[in-house]
Amino acid sequence: MTANHIDLYDTTLRDGTQREGISYSLDDKLKIAARLDAFGMDYIEGGWPGSNPKDVEFFRRAPSLGLSHAKLAAFGSTRRKGVRPADDANVQALMGAETPVVTLVGKSWALHVVNVLETTAEENLAMIEESVAYCQAQGKEVIYDAEHFFDGYKADAAYALATLAAAARGGAACVVLCDTNGGSLPWEVAEATARVIAHLGGVAVGIHTHDDGGCGVANSLAAVRAGAVQVQGTVNGYGERVANANLCAIIPDLQLKMGYDCLSAEQLRGLTELSRYVAELANLTHDDHLPFVGASAFAHKGGIHVAAMLKDAASYQHIDPAAVGNRQRSVVSELSGRGNLIDKIKQFNLNPESLDVPKVLEQIKQLESQGFTFEGAEASVELMLRRTHPAYVPPFEMTDYWVMVQRRRGRGPIVEATVKVRVGPKIMHTVAEGNGPVNALDAALRQALAGVFPRISGVRLADYKVRILDGENNTAATTRVLIETREGMRRWSTVGASPNIIDASWRALADSMEYALIQ
Amino acid sequence: MTANHIDLYDTTLRDGTQREGISYSLDDKLKIAARLDAFGMDYIEGGWPGSNPKDVEFFRRAPSLGLSHAKLAAFGSTRRKGVRPADDANVQALMGAETPVVTLVGKSWALHVVNVLETTAEENLAMIEESVAYCQAQGKEVIYDAEHFFDGYKADAAYALATLAAAARGGAACVVLCDTNGGSLPWEVAEATARVIAHLGGVAVGIHTHDDGGCGVANSLAAVRAGAVQVQGTVNGYGERVANANLCAIIPDLQLKMGYDCLSAEQLRGLTELSRYVAELANLTHDDHLPFVGASAFAHKGGIHVAAMLKDAASYQHIDPAAVGNRQRSVVSELSGRGNLIDKIKQFNLNPESLDVPKVLEQIKQLESQGFTFEGAEASVELMLRRTHPAYVPPFEMTDYWVMVQRRRGRGPIVEATVKVRVGPKIMHTVAEGNGPVNALDAALRQALAGVFPRISGVRLADYKVRILDGENNTAATTRVLIETREGMRRWSTVGASPNIIDASWRALADSMEYALIQ
Repeated sequence: MTANHIDLYDTTLRDGTQREGISYSLDDKLKIAARLDAFGMDYIEGGWPGSNPKDVEFFRRAPSLGLSHAKLAAFGSTRRKGVRPADDANVQALMGAETPVVTLVGKSWALHVVNVLETTAEENLAMIEESVAYCQAQGKEVIYDAEHFFDGYKADAAYALATLAAAARGGAACVVLCDTNGGSLPWEVAEATARVIAHLGGVAVGIHTHDDGGCGVANSLAAVRAGAVQVQGTVNGYGERVANANLCAIIPDLQLKMGYDCLSAEQLRGLTELSRYVAELANLTHDDHLPFVGASAFAHKGGIHVAAMLKDAASYQHIDPAAVGNRQRSVVSELSGRGNLIDKIKQFNLNPESLDVPKVLEQIKQLESQGFTFEGAEASVELMLRRTHPAYVPPFEMTDYWVMVQRRRGRGPIVEATVKVRVGPKIMHTVAEGNGPVNALDAALRQALAGVFPRISGVRLADYKVRILDGENNTAATTRVLIETREGMRRWSTVGASPNIIDASWRALADSMEYALIQ
Repeated sequence: MTANHIDLYDTTLRDGTQREGISYSLDDKLKIAARLDAFGMDYIEGGWPGSNPKDVEFFRRAPSLGLSHAKLAAFGSTRRKGVRPADDANVQALMGAETPVVTLVGKSWALHVVNVLETTAEENLAMIEESVAYCQAQGKEVIYDAEHFFDGYKADAAYALATLAAAARGGAACVVLCDTNGGSLPWEVAEATARVIAHLGGVAVGIHTHDDGGCGVANSLAAVRAGAVQVQGTVNGYGERVANANLCAIIPDLQLKMGYDCLSAEQLRGLTELSRYVAELANLTHDDHLPFVGASAFAHKGGIHVAAMLKDAASYQHIDPAAVGNRQRSVVSELSGRGNLIDKIKQFNLNPESLDVPKVLEQIKQLESQGFTFEGAEASVELMLRRTHPAYVPPFEMTDYWVMVQRRRGRGPIVEATVKVRVGPKIMHTVAEGNGPVNALDAALRQALAGVFPRISGVRLADYKVRILDGENNTAATTRVLIETREGMRRWSTVGASPNIIDASWRALADSMEYALIQ
């Protein structure tokens, strides 16, 4: 632990679950906690045991994780008005969680004390001090989250500071300034943080921001610059309304640009993988446009940029993508031209001399005008290139398929698919049922290929995405299907487009299998 | 124009098109330009006529738009090394665009001058000054974009300032400091901007940032606070790599929080609609988590937050959502409980007394465990509530369907669907072809309903979204279909989930039509 170490406090599992669309299973929560620990977070807030049974169960099972570095924190509010902490169900639920750290949230803003809690300013101060003191006396490291601190500070700075002083008197190890509504601006956060630090003396100060004004990351950085030593946030910024402070941007900013010490260089290289892992368990498409860790974060589309990048990588990149485990890409599209495609050919380890590059460029242009997109479907691009090689022989050729889905008198759905595939001189004609039409097609195709290519059984579809391209044409619009396929640790993506979702899926599926078989 | 007016310079149509996945048609570009003008942007950068024929054609057709307020700008680089502006193809293309404003981009960073342009520091200064002077002499208002200004300033402040002085000597109306690689931090931007303003004296200074470090919005705000009077950005932040500066966050921050004057209050209320319109033409799903304008920006999920909001709207909101044309919502989910559902019932103008609220809560919980999600499918929630009313009679009932898709010997795809629907005592049995299976089902269903409900012909599907919920189960995973339907200006969303994409689509389609018919 160096003098300029910043504590990373992750609340993906508590505040992060407030994001619209997120609902983790208990198993998901345990897996994420283990991953956050392995990554190097200093604190992991696991949940609010006083608010729901899933979180109680999480803390019951958490010791089996055997966390190697992170301290587990249970979150809850200060005692209710007029009740002793020892008699408060929420405070007792916190004790029952049996974590080394307890994070107590209390009110800093008179508006909330009077309108929401419906109590007095004095009772609120007592609620804070007594709750912190009680938990501290039970042997807990107590972190005090000052909800709405910056709004409260604007409304009545003296009272907001008095709430923090109450937490400090109670024995809080750290008081955390929360921009709960997310509307503060960086210079406001910097000024208030500096004043708190001057006012409190020895107590550590932390920062917890949201992105409602678009300044969540900058606000966290500004607070650290003003002296805060703990940053609370979530992986990918997942959180209520717009977002929590995004640790996947804050950590590399602190470490690579501001010279603070959060993680080892090796841990930091795990950032992109962590970001994708949490997106996967959250069942959200990983956002390509996340700073540092998004698939597009170092993707260059403009022909001029790509040309300049070939001359000097620093010319259009703010950091080396490898430092956060990401990579530089050039994007293939109708606008990008020959330079990007040549760059891709290098990346695929192909020899441009033996390929018909202008033909592929022309094909891409034409297919894109029909709705294909080759951004994010690199295996389809590689296949197009390989197919222009004079010696290329496709491993199989599909000639026919037939799919049927029905419900009759409440029975169903019933799904059946047939395919006819040529492999060399042989014709395979197979039939399969499935849960859905694409699943049935997939099953019939695998059946046709498995006899000749046994390895196909190790190839799995990892993701299947559907995008409707032209919302104006109702259900007749062009449908684009992206399929991600996996074999062991290798992954590749293929694309198909058609007004018919089955046909589009079929094309992406056929490309995906062809790509598997030529490796 | 007041003293604290900030000029809004929109580059959605130029820098914004560098975003991976965006490719506007010429028509799209013209429509967006008209919309940006109507919204109140001061400058609209339409494209780079020297780089592609689509942009040349855009400027040829732009006068027909009859822009009411915005000035149109053509973008291009300073003259090449060793060539007079009058002989430079790119500068001449700018003149050919016949816009009142020309924006010239030049180099501020020695790394780029030497490594990319492969010329000398002196020639670069001459390129800047002569290009600006030439365009100014042709009667243009010249804006000078200093590419990589902040990186150049860090490497060699004196040279970076000298490039701006060259633009000023040439007669630039405004010099714009560009954080091209997007990695600067707010205090760096503030310091450099203040120094530039002190150095240049009378010339107006603008700011152009990117979001690679997660500080794009904050950096723009910091520059304005330091004296910049023009902000360049894009709608929704669309742009290369991570994002351009997001005008949909910067504008309300400047106007509602910092007291600058950008737009009238009425214009500002058009912000959310503008954001959605551009997403639609960009063919991108509108990001629910955009600050200010996202569908989730004022959505409250936590039971405690919702309860507090009912007491005091300011308690968990940083601004009034109506100021930017957005609205407050509570989110229905298994975590949210009775309070959120009661809030929804109010929003739907239903009477909770006549409905079975606990039954619907139980249903939601059960369906969500199967993969449904009611966040974003409010019409399905409203239908579930209405169906618990003792007097509710569904307008129709679907009993059977059958769908077939095939390709035979290169012919196809051929698609056919039949449906059997009961309307009161009548049974309708209809068949239709379609471009795809959902389209054929939709057509057969409409045919069955149209005889009894003529208004169904005015109901259109506006969007169709598919999400695979469990990537681990290959093509057998649960599929969730969200359908957005439109009738005139009204829109509603319904949901269906099943391992079978056709069956999931069918459920969402049936809900969508039922909802249309009970209005």
